Amino acid sequence: MSSSQFESLEKTLGTYVPEGELSEVRRILYGKELKSLELPQAAVDSASERDFELKGYVFEAAQEQLRAARVVRVGLIQNKIVLPTDAPVLDQITALHKRVADMVEVAAMCGVNIICFQEAWTMPFAFCTREREPWTEFAESAEEGYTTRFCQELAKKHNMVVVSPILERDEIHGGTLWNTAVVVSNSGKVLGKTRKNHIPRVGDFNESSYYMEGNTGHRVFQTQFGKIAVNICYGRHHPLNWFMYGLNGAEIIFNPSATVGALSEPMWSIEARNAAIANHCFTCAINRVGTEHFKNEFTSGDGKKAHRDFGHFYGSSYVAAPDGSRSPGLSRTQDGLLVTELDLNLNRQIADKWNFKMTGRFDMYAEEIAEAVQHEFQPNIIKE
Amino acid sequence: MSSSQFESLEKTLGTYVPEGELSEVRRILYGKELKSLELPQAAVDSASERDFELKGYVFEAAQEQLRAARVVRVGLIQNKIVLPTDAPVLDQITALHKRVADMVEVAAMCGVNIICFQEAWTMPFAFCTREREPWTEFAESAEEGYTTRFCQELAKKHNMVVVSPILERDEIHGGTLWNTAVVVSNSGKVLGKTRKNHIPRVGDFNESSYYMEGNTGHRVFQTQFGKIAVNICYGRHHPLNWFMYGLNGAEIIFNPSATVGALSEPMWSIEARNAAIANHCFTCAINRVGTEHFKNEFTSGDGKKAHRDFGHFYGSSYVAAPDGSRSPGLSRTQDGLLVTELDLNLNRQIADKWNFKMTGRFDMYAEEIAEAVQHEFQPNIIKE
Repeated sequence: MSSSQFESLEKTLGTYVPEGELSEVRRILYGKELKSLELPQAAVDSASERDFELKGYVFEAAQEQLRAARVVRVGLIQNKIVLPTDAPVLDQITALHKRVADMVEVAAMCGVNIICFQEAWTMPFAFCTREREPWTEFAESAEEGYTTRFCQELAKKHNMVVVSPILERDEIHGGTLWNTAVVVSNSGKVLGKTRKNHIPRVGDFNESSYYMEGNTGHRVFQTQFGKIAVNICYGRHHPLNWFMYGLNGAEIIFNPSATVGALSEPMWSIEARNAAIANHCFTCAINRVGTEHFKNEFTSGDGKKAHRDFGHFYGSSYVAAPDGSRSPGLSRTQDGLLVTELDLNLNRQIADKWNFKMTGRFDMYAEEIAEAVQHEFQPNIIKE
Repeated sequence: MSSSQFESLEKTLGTYVPEGELSEVRRILYGKELKSLELPQAAVDSASERDFELKGYVFEAAQEQLRAARVVRVGLIQNKIVLPTDAPVLDQITALHKRVADMVEVAAMCGVNIICFQEAWTMPFAFCTREREPWTEFAESAEEGYTTRFCQELAKKHNMVVVSPILERDEIHGGTLWNTAVVVSNSGKVLGKTRKNHIPRVGDFNESSYYMEGNTGHRVFQTQFGKIAVNICYGRHHPLNWFMYGLNGAEIIFNPSATVGALSEPMWSIEARNAAIANHCFTCAINRVGTEHFKNEFTSGDGKKAHRDFGHFYGSSYVAAPDGSRSPGLSRTQDGLLVTELDLNLNRQIADKWNFKMTGRFDMYAEEIAEAVQHEFQPNIIKE
């Protein structure tokens, strides 16, 4: 079976492993079993008509005496590009707007409060080509671009916070390009933007040809439904990045991504989940899906022949909780919407149990890291 | 099937999932497939006679032009206690010495260069009782204790680096107790000691009743076979701890642990593996195995009745590599020796591919963490 056909780990395990052992397999792989979220029949039908997967799960927390449950529904969207990569730029953007609007409509039927799209969701992930045209034409203003205005409409219409990761053109600062997530409040107002802090130079992901390391630090956005942050793609490999969003109070950290099977798949289920555990918060990992073909051939810095695609985006979007549990992933091959209901009270409950922010000795690390970045740093090595 | 009978995830998957899909399942769960390490028949027979599991795997690296392969064999030992917890202290220690010596002998037959035992390996993990006697009698001098002398003999006899995690009594500094790993060179010399940096106060692991946060920083030990560090148990939940060992140059980080199923099992396969990925090094997670019963009943701070054991130590020791691959785990129920052959050249090869130490922006984090630990810290929160 080829890797781009394999639908999902969960499906294979469910098919073959007998029930008695399956519960142990699931406990070890996924943690505490999650309830399925009951979804309205209209949403289920609509997803099926529109040809995307729809799944729902509930992360519960214990009842408290002094705090009411803080229940929020979060939607993650993974999707293929709609038109070929050589279609006119505006057609490609518009087709993606339409596709995603259709999926957001179903999210609204499911009562979603906060929705996040995949990285650079208005375009193919064309940075592998290292060509400028037409890809830089996909860049838009974070504050006033066509896509942000589109997301503002969605937000108001559905009373939903929209996290919209785009290629940004910053006209105020010299027309620079950035990999940016725009956070639109459910009021329709642009709450702000946050940029990708860590930029890959690996394989086909030589994105530093297009944009630089983000300069917006580790902002957290206070929404009506909780405090959220956005750790874009490559930032998930950097535990300190998650950590600083956590120190700034993020309750849910989104990780909109674009990554392919041969490069990163065995890491995919590890990194966002580790971050949820280590930082006592929820994390939401989103990957695009499908294979994108380009008109001009390109090489990948791996000694192999020039080619026109760089592999299969494996989807598998999931949500991880601070108690080590996680949702099953969306499909590896299909568009999908994952709806999870989170009780944000779980974060403090788990923090009070494990205490990582109390046992973390952060003052010691501030000092040690400050030393380690000095030119005269001497690693602490004991020799015989 | 009860959790303490479930032998291993790998065995269940291998039994039920058909070959075609099993390779995809394994790729997603374990990364690049590892070769089995050919082990001498005498070692296999001896392990079988002595009633412990023996497994071997090879982590390969690409050939380089200017560096020879840097191949090292690492052994991890997981074991049950031998005598009941109310046997005389010295008898318990001596029985564990004998058991482990038998397992080390098999490791030597397998050509192991560096061996690591489980956390507090000379004793039951009795800190759940919160009693002083007889448990503090298990504490020994790191430099001159009975156990260190025993490890020096093993090291010389087998030309093997021995990592020996014990309960330490530091007579020089007021007879204080510490959770410490002693590193003995293959020459037989004590290379040094390193203490547990993060101390749990969770469930039955209220170890701060016995010892404080370690004061030995993030030392790395230069051995003949590579640079090693020891991140003891609870430190695995703290990504900064792994990170500082990495910045000091560790090529292999051992994580000798003691942890039970209900508390941590879904996190077990995540944390050490995430650390290997994030820090471009090998990590070795070791957990003890079996259930330990105590004479006096104790409570666990969870509202439940007093009891005499606190659950099943689930073994499952494994090795993770910087490329996201990992070995299968040892059994959840049996004593075992895991032998892995590592080519340490893989660390730099993966670092050169992914560049996390170049894209890490550590100076930014040194500043941000230094700010975050100040009393007057204001989290970076954007409001509407």
